[in-house]
Amino acid sequence: MPRRDEFDLIADLFAPLAGRHPAALNLADDAAVLPPPAEGQHTVVSVDTIVGGVHFLPDDPPDLVARKALRVNLSDMAAMGAEPVGVFLSVALSAAEDDAWMDRFIVGLDHDLGAYGVGLMGGDTVSTPGPASFTITILGQVPPGAYLSRAGGRVGDDLWVSGTLGDSALGLRVLTGTLTLSDKAASDFLCDRYRVPRPRVDLGLALRGVATAALDVSDGLAGDLRHLCRASACGARIETARLPLSDATRYCIESDPALADIALTGGDDYELLFSAPPDQAALVDDIAERLTVPLTRIGCLEGGNGVTVLSGDGGSRLLESFGWRHGW
Amino acid sequence: MPRRDEFDLIADLFAPLAGRHPAALNLADDAAVLPPPAEGQHTVVSVDTIVGGVHFLPDDPPDLVARKALRVNLSDMAAMGAEPVGVFLSVALSAAEDDAWMDRFIVGLDHDLGAYGVGLMGGDTVSTPGPASFTITILGQVPPGAYLSRAGGRVGDDLWVSGTLGDSALGLRVLTGTLTLSDKAASDFLCDRYRVPRPRVDLGLALRGVATAALDVSDGLAGDLRHLCRASACGARIETARLPLSDATRYCIESDPALADIALTGGDDYELLFSAPPDQAALVDDIAERLTVPLTRIGCLEGGNGVTVLSGDGGSRLLESFGWRHGW
Repeated sequence: MPRRDEFDLIADLFAPLAGRHPAALNLADDAAVLPPPAEGQHTVVSVDTIVGGVHFLPDDPPDLVARKALRVNLSDMAAMGAEPVGVFLSVALSAAEDDAWMDRFIVGLDHDLGAYGVGLMGGDTVSTPGPASFTITILGQVPPGAYLSRAGGRVGDDLWVSGTLGDSALGLRVLTGTLTLSDKAASDFLCDRYRVPRPRVDLGLALRGVATAALDVSDGLAGDLRHLCRASACGARIETARLPLSDATRYCIESDPALADIALTGGDDYELLFSAPPDQAALVDDIAERLTVPLTRIGCLEGGNGVTVLSGDGGSRLLESFGWRHGW
Repeated sequence: MPRRDEFDLIADLFAPLAGRHPAALNLADDAAVLPPPAEGQHTVVSVDTIVGGVHFLPDDPPDLVARKALRVNLSDMAAMGAEPVGVFLSVALSAAEDDAWMDRFIVGLDHDLGAYGVGLMGGDTVSTPGPASFTITILGQVPPGAYLSRAGGRVGDDLWVSGTLGDSALGLRVLTGTLTLSDKAASDFLCDRYRVPRPRVDLGLALRGVATAALDVSDGLAGDLRHLCRASACGARIETARLPLSDATRYCIESDPALADIALTGGDDYELLFSAPPDQAALVDDIAERLTVPLTRIGCLEGGNGVTVLSGDGGSRLLESFGWRHGW
């Protein structure tokens, strides 16, 4: 397995990508230097690490690992209503990531940097005896006071979610062999949803001034809704019958009732969950149509501090500790 | 081994530190939000990852691991002449880092955040089946055009280095048992130099407008000098007799001639190497006195593209590939 040393990794793979952005100083200095954003905009910064065997699978295609690493960070920008500007990439490589693996990683990274108009501005390259991991720090910008917070939700606001829920968690089960689908198209769809999140960057920008609170659903709807409620000091009520499901996920649930809660508890969806006043509903519908992003009203914020889930048969549950958690 | 979950790590350990800086939004949102720096200053950004067993030792005291993680990043700010402002910390924890370990890690982090006046603004917390690793992204600021580059050195400039060289590489040998010193004080001094770098932040600020090129010596003087020469499109000549050595390192070299090149090749010094015109020498001496940082003239930049090392006996060597390499 031919292996570039760390210096050649930078020269051969990273510098050509970074050369597109002047702040990177061609990766030839100790740091990047960024001029202030135009018009007094504020800088939004987030960091996410993905670890082999934890956040991606060792046999995931390298280009998709790169794209996932970037996209989970882009999703944080979406959640903040920020315009992504640039990223810093720290790669910790094990013996398994040979030149061919890294070549494919770079193809995926290059593709998505271009697709989202984001510059590679710097980073670090180290070796690790453990699994490979990738840490991306993303910088975005937002006009003063315009960022979307988790904390602005008000009692009576509608709760909306983008896209469909539960797909990614089912995709992970397919990829790890704990779920088998006879329908190959459905199976591929779910795996793709796990491997290549669709960060809702354009939606985040469109929701400035419309959403009262927002976050991205990375830990499962139920857990993330609790984060939003805690930050906004309120409770919430959602209806399971309203949760948006893909055909593939709907089929899985019908085939196995044990999966009934997958849209509530499954992680890695990277959809946006947001609140908005009821009188903004028509505007939210307009945004959905303009961006061709499905937006579904799943419930509302209410008093108290609990999350109530109304099921289709008229029953209700008060959620205590659903979902899993990561990130700050 | 009691273990906080990731959410409790944030709430118990990181949020209290981050609460000091408004940009962190109390770690309760998806990202930090920073207003533009005052007076149109530019933002300097660098990322460094340290991995257990690679950049620190598994039995290093946790508080010193935290301080090293922070200080190697502060050293990048020093090399750029930037004023450190804030950091983002992504921690990947193995099963070995229990609550007691993390408590001590936080003590060290807290200490150095305070000592250097740097805010914790955000981060990420993940688990890893491999060794623990810590990725810090540091943000600093510098007036427009004032940053120190590797690229501004000119033929005829003096070459200066701060502090002493080789201590850290010898400290690593002591800690890993490949070097034994009978003098405990000397031994402790060298180990401390490995574990707790002294980033030359104040020196970097003082060198704005004085140094023509600068970088921090993290990969060994010889290798880093080649980086400076490559970026500045020139060669260099240094004299081994001028390389600043601590008493402990001088003693080691006298005891074992095989260590003669340790000041040239040893890594992890985190001293500043910089060039300045000869007519600035008195000013450099003034800075050394004012900051009580030893600054030693070790040679000069010259034409060509090689690094020539003059030894005490009048011999000379042309360096080809000295030192080890990391970071961008």
